[in-house]
Amino acid sequence: MLIPVILSGGAGTRLWPVSRKAHPKPFMRLADGQTLASSTIRRALKVASGGVSLTVTGRDYYFLTRDLYREAAPEGEHHFLLEPTGRNTAPAIGAAAHWVRDHFGPETLMLVLPADHLIRDHAAFAQAVSSAAELASKGWLTCLGISPTHAETGYGYIRAGEPLSDGLEIAAFVEKPDAETAQRYYESGQYLWNGGMFCFSAGAILAALEEYVPDISVGIAQVWRASASDAEPVELEPESFAAVRADSIDFAVMEKAQRRAVVPVSCGWSDIGSWQAISELYEGDALGNRVRGEAVLVDSRNTFVQGEQRLVAAVGVDNLVIVDTGDAVLVASRDRAQEVKAVVDELRRTEHDSAIHHRTVHRPWGSYTVLEDAEDCKVKRLVVRPGGVLSLQRHRKRSEHWTVVSGEATVRIEDREFCLSPGEATQIQAGQLHRLENHGDDNVHIIEVQTGSYFGEDDIERLEDIYGRT
Amino acid sequence: MLIPVILSGGAGTRLWPVSRKAHPKPFMRLADGQTLASSTIRRALKVASGGVSLTVTGRDYYFLTRDLYREAAPEGEHHFLLEPTGRNTAPAIGAAAHWVRDHFGPETLMLVLPADHLIRDHAAFAQAVSSAAELASKGWLTCLGISPTHAETGYGYIRAGEPLSDGLEIAAFVEKPDAETAQRYYESGQYLWNGGMFCFSAGAILAALEEYVPDISVGIAQVWRASASDAEPVELEPESFAAVRADSIDFAVMEKAQRRAVVPVSCGWSDIGSWQAISELYEGDALGNRVRGEAVLVDSRNTFVQGEQRLVAAVGVDNLVIVDTGDAVLVASRDRAQEVKAVVDELRRTEHDSAIHHRTVHRPWGSYTVLEDAEDCKVKRLVVRPGGVLSLQRHRKRSEHWTVVSGEATVRIEDREFCLSPGEATQIQAGQLHRLENHGDDNVHIIEVQTGSYFGEDDIERLEDIYGRT
Repeated sequence: MLIPVILSGGAGTRLWPVSRKAHPKPFMRLADGQTLASSTIRRALKVASGGVSLTVTGRDYYFLTRDLYREAAPEGEHHFLLEPTGRNTAPAIGAAAHWVRDHFGPETLMLVLPADHLIRDHAAFAQAVSSAAELASKGWLTCLGISPTHAETGYGYIRAGEPLSDGLEIAAFVEKPDAETAQRYYESGQYLWNGGMFCFSAGAILAALEEYVPDISVGIAQVWRASASDAEPVELEPESFAAVRADSIDFAVMEKAQRRAVVPVSCGWSDIGSWQAISELYEGDALGNRVRGEAVLVDSRNTFVQGEQRLVAAVGVDNLVIVDTGDAVLVASRDRAQEVKAVVDELRRTEHDSAIHHRTVHRPWGSYTVLEDAEDCKVKRLVVRPGGVLSLQRHRKRSEHWTVVSGEATVRIEDREFCLSPGEATQIQAGQLHRLENHGDDNVHIIEVQTGSYFGEDDIERLEDIYGRT
Repeated sequence: MLIPVILSGGAGTRLWPVSRKAHPKPFMRLADGQTLASSTIRRALKVASGGVSLTVTGRDYYFLTRDLYREAAPEGEHHFLLEPTGRNTAPAIGAAAHWVRDHFGPETLMLVLPADHLIRDHAAFAQAVSSAAELASKGWLTCLGISPTHAETGYGYIRAGEPLSDGLEIAAFVEKPDAETAQRYYESGQYLWNGGMFCFSAGAILAALEEYVPDISVGIAQVWRASASDAEPVELEPESFAAVRADSIDFAVMEKAQRRAVVPVSCGWSDIGSWQAISELYEGDALGNRVRGEAVLVDSRNTFVQGEQRLVAAVGVDNLVIVDTGDAVLVASRDRAQEVKAVVDELRRTEHDSAIHHRTVHRPWGSYTVLEDAEDCKVKRLVVRPGGVLSLQRHRKRSEHWTVVSGEATVRIEDREFCLSPGEATQIQAGQLHRLENHGDDNVHIIEVQTGSYFGEDDIERLEDIYGRT
């Protein structure tokens, strides 16, 4: 049996302003309209034997990831381990191995996949996974090694060694090279890119962790004992998890292990590491321009525009990336797209909200979009999914005015409960207990106007919450 | 007596996306926070003797212009001629001359000024106006001629002739030159820029119109007879005005006239004709970057950013103009800033709203800003000035929900009239007669949520309107 273990985290700062801390790269929608998370779960379940997946992600990403999976792969059985904080891949994979061993036995194979990569050739990928699983079932710690298409300096490399029945032994893992070394690697034909995809049995990786990083092995065992490991999702116990040393599985295990193998694969892989990489997913016009959204380009060339609701106009420019979102716009030289990270660093330094949140924020019950955030009021569009229930709550400093624009909303204010249809409105005074629910089959859309003296998200007292947020 | 005659119109398409048809260049706020219209009226009244101004503008611009004037020059007596359509400067100046002659006599001097130019040296300007007035009072048709600061190809030139007591005779008006000719003009010292500023008596310009363009002269006389010329504002009668041939005062009169003079002036003049010109009003940093609004620039140079509410980030770019507004963003090469016009042409061709309106739209009673414009609802912030009264109106296809966020609103719905304080709300069903008034001393801010099936501005039936819009 093979269970995909999807590692989903990381902010993807080079893809700001679309990728942000509260809405990282796996949630970005690409040219095909799909999120990377959706594409990953579909790809994973195609090669998994049992329809079971395990995803290791942060608490904040759980509900949205689960919802995307349910939509993208409703037939799958999706399990989650929630990390209270990021500790790199070794602890995440260790915890996942515990889960797999406990539920399916130590011989069960784990296929570790990052949630935010793109693979275009599914057949080649499936073939490589099949070979990797063969090796893993014989006890090899196995990587997928991506056949380089150019002399890339941005990835680590794997030097291949002696051939095996279904792949090659790994001679060495090597760090990101300089340009000259990358060229040599590329031309030699002996090196493969390390794309962070692994296959091994739960027992084998747990044994390897114990052998090569005993402190992490002991730490993860403690986390596992301290966590309610049969819960769904499993919330990894915060105190013990925070005590585990952060390390990558590459450095902790793969670089030191004895029985390690690589399966070379050419599967149209991309780590979608920059806007340059995203722009290449679009067809260019005769002048090399690529546009998603609404744009007017006057005498401009080799320019990529990704817009949302606003119009983007360019005049006489060349070789730019222009990315427009609700609250921020990025203009970057295409060749310098990697350096977008520096913008995010600066925004974090100044605690600018656009490093973290979008105007649209996902919640377990749906989402809200901020339409106006001013001194005297805040206006939001709330979208409550069928079955969605906002917590029973009250605010000290603001009143709320709800106008239903579509769907049928069930509203409770203090002890009164009633339904509101499109065009109907109600108001909730500061201090009044209230709750909003959607008992219907369609999304409920509400315009919420907040009035009062303070509109921070922290002015909320939750008395009941079906999502455990009290 | 000298009366400033301010010509205010024109879309300023090279300054899109800030300048738009419904919000043209005179209403743009520059680095000093002032609109060009405000600066112009203040400058004009400083050199005028009687505190009286006359502005010729379009109907759509009247209320906003009047409000800006009242704020910028509350001591002035501001009169308006409203053109139903633009017919270039000769008919506008002709109508203004009728008004000045009828009210103050034919000897009264007119100082014609465009509403959307910038002058930095007020003393030099005042000195030149004084000389021009001297000449005008002796019957000369006088221009201010701007001493060139470089070989500009974008302006018409005036070739100076024999000296007069307070200026120079005009030898010729010449068209915009090519680069080589402009260089020759500049080096000769005999040429001045034509900035569209004139001084003459009402009687002299009417006589000149009669002599050189009798058809326009007759046409304007008919317009004047057909219009209620003592009204305030004077609305030029549409049918007769439309029949007047459009022509510039330069071509119609100045190029042909006999007694014509020019007063050279160096007054830090700019016609603010492009984003390049606007960027030069800001101090650059060590890398030549100029920023208005919130921006993060990473390794970028010679770049001008003008933002509003959103963050603009630039990475590794050089020599760009980036202008961000509520619904459109422009990225242009600085050298190509003149070509922004091509974007507007394209937007007009496709009837894109961003060629015409901003998210904030000015109305006689205040303004509104569209916060959300969707299939299922439209959300606006209404700002009603003290004394402002929206028309008594009703809508067929939408209900409106008003939540007061600041100020005290007086609301009428059908035959009920009541007050709403901040935090209070009401709703108006489709078909219900309603009106909103501000009887207080502070602006009233209201969030309006429209629900229903259609949210176009044309679904409005006005029964009474104090601004004459029924």
